[in-house]
Amino acid sequence: MSLVIVGSVAFDKIETPYGQTDKIIGGAGTYICFSSSYFAKNPKVVAVVGNDFPQTFIEKLTSRGVETTGLQVKKEGKTFFWSGKYHENMNSRETLVTELNVLGDFDPIIPESYQDCTYLMLGNLSPVVQRQVIERLTKRPKLIVMDTMNFWMDIMFDELVKTISMVDVLTINDEEAAQLSGEKNIVKAAKKILNMGPKYLIIKKGEHGALMFSKEGQFYAPALPLESVFDPTGAGDTFAGGFIGYIAKTDDISFDNMKSAMIAGSALASFCVEKFGTERIENLSDTEIKARIRTFIDLSTFEFKF
Amino acid sequence: MSLVIVGSVAFDKIETPYGQTDKIIGGAGTYICFSSSYFAKNPKVVAVVGNDFPQTFIEKLTSRGVETTGLQVKKEGKTFFWSGKYHENMNSRETLVTELNVLGDFDPIIPESYQDCTYLMLGNLSPVVQRQVIERLTKRPKLIVMDTMNFWMDIMFDELVKTISMVDVLTINDEEAAQLSGEKNIVKAAKKILNMGPKYLIIKKGEHGALMFSKEGQFYAPALPLESVFDPTGAGDTFAGGFIGYIAKTDDISFDNMKSAMIAGSALASFCVEKFGTERIENLSDTEIKARIRTFIDLSTFEFKF
Repeated sequence: MSLVIVGSVAFDKIETPYGQTDKIIGGAGTYICFSSSYFAKNPKVVAVVGNDFPQTFIEKLTSRGVETTGLQVKKEGKTFFWSGKYHENMNSRETLVTELNVLGDFDPIIPESYQDCTYLMLGNLSPVVQRQVIERLTKRPKLIVMDTMNFWMDIMFDELVKTISMVDVLTINDEEAAQLSGEKNIVKAAKKILNMGPKYLIIKKGEHGALMFSKEGQFYAPALPLESVFDPTGAGDTFAGGFIGYIAKTDDISFDNMKSAMIAGSALASFCVEKFGTERIENLSDTEIKARIRTFIDLSTFEFKF
Repeated sequence: MSLVIVGSVAFDKIETPYGQTDKIIGGAGTYICFSSSYFAKNPKVVAVVGNDFPQTFIEKLTSRGVETTGLQVKKEGKTFFWSGKYHENMNSRETLVTELNVLGDFDPIIPESYQDCTYLMLGNLSPVVQRQVIERLTKRPKLIVMDTMNFWMDIMFDELVKTISMVDVLTINDEEAAQLSGEKNIVKAAKKILNMGPKYLIIKKGEHGALMFSKEGQFYAPALPLESVFDPTGAGDTFAGGFIGYIAKTDDISFDNMKSAMIAGSALASFCVEKFGTERIENLSDTEIKARIRTFIDLSTFEFKF
């Protein structure tokens, strides 16, 4: 039984109203690996980097117990690079540079040791690559969670819908839900998207929390009100990592357990935004994670007397 | 022991993408009276209407048990009239007409029978009138809840701040919290506003729920995702009415009980937007209110296994 994570491992360069970074480690796969590692044992990553990717960055992942046999290092080619700038309110960002590099023709090879995959997390990547991973697993995982973004809706809509039809849980943000469904209303959008195949849809609303829709019901995970959001990069990936990590740890795919998994994801994401890049989620203590989860419990628990 | 409600009782004319109304009964006081009446016994209203206000509308309130001794009917003068238009996304509205009429020189007379006031709800009105009501009560109520809006921040900031300093709970929306505090960040805004006097601040975020801030902690009440919002008019007032009504019913001003009161308010507000004006909240059954509250409980309850 294992958790397999597919997603970009990359370089990011980030500018926010609070400062800017040099090239730092980034990518959806990286955030998911770090985040999930606080719950799941030895998550296995499938990704690709170039000859410019420092061994020390890979060691950051392995030190968190991440299995990197499936992390291809291309001797001829450079690592995927993204650079972006956040504006005053942190809700909108501008992409300054996108260099696909080795991600452009990424062929996701699944090591034999990954074929025990029970939980599969498809981090944001081309829907074609995401589908290849599903198809290359000899046994269908118990649960497939997929994250994606508007970029793929713009340029590969049909491929995206095909991959979405194969997964159990889809996570997107509110604007992407509207774009994917053609419905502005969140309930109507959710109905349409659930008809595309996934049994569960999680709509991420940033500072307004996250909503899960399914035939079994709805769940609203609050977001922790934060005094300062230093850098939102990777918050959605970190959420996804905490979510799938918690499910893998508990080995329970019931609707009720997914609610707790959303709280785990929200708690990890609330750490992520406190510092630049992955800095805050590279070395969290068990104590601070538990304390943060308790804060979420306090934030949303009430006992109604009828 | 009683609940006293001050607020406008008015005529509204509303236009939404779904249709438009003739002159219908409206006003913050009206919504609060209806809403609170599902929890509190015989709420007592302080308000003023003109000679054009139909007795049948007053009977709608009395039929819900509302005590109307403090509802002044001015023989010379017309009832406050507001007309507004909602745009496509229902988040922004345009005021078409505001005729203050008898509300312009409203002198809030407190009947002797209201002097047993334990819970005071100051619905949206001039902060000077709100303060007069506090000052005219011979005994300070156990809890004073105040609602207000940006309008008073624009034209009577100092008077508003003075009244705010005298209340226990302030309810405003997120934009108003930013305007009142000069802070865009919700946590920083809440800190500043709590320093103005209130022990509890409830920030209403519409479809994103409501947040309560206090020294005792924070609470996030979710909003129910709705397939269609027919008319948002009065949703905030209805929330306030459900909140204070539940507190009056349970006679418990603890932080924990305020959490449940927020759920009661949110449940009532979720009914309010289903039809034009007060229509949906004039005749709710106990069964449907309980069912809706259970929906809120399902929406936000989880049991985290550490």
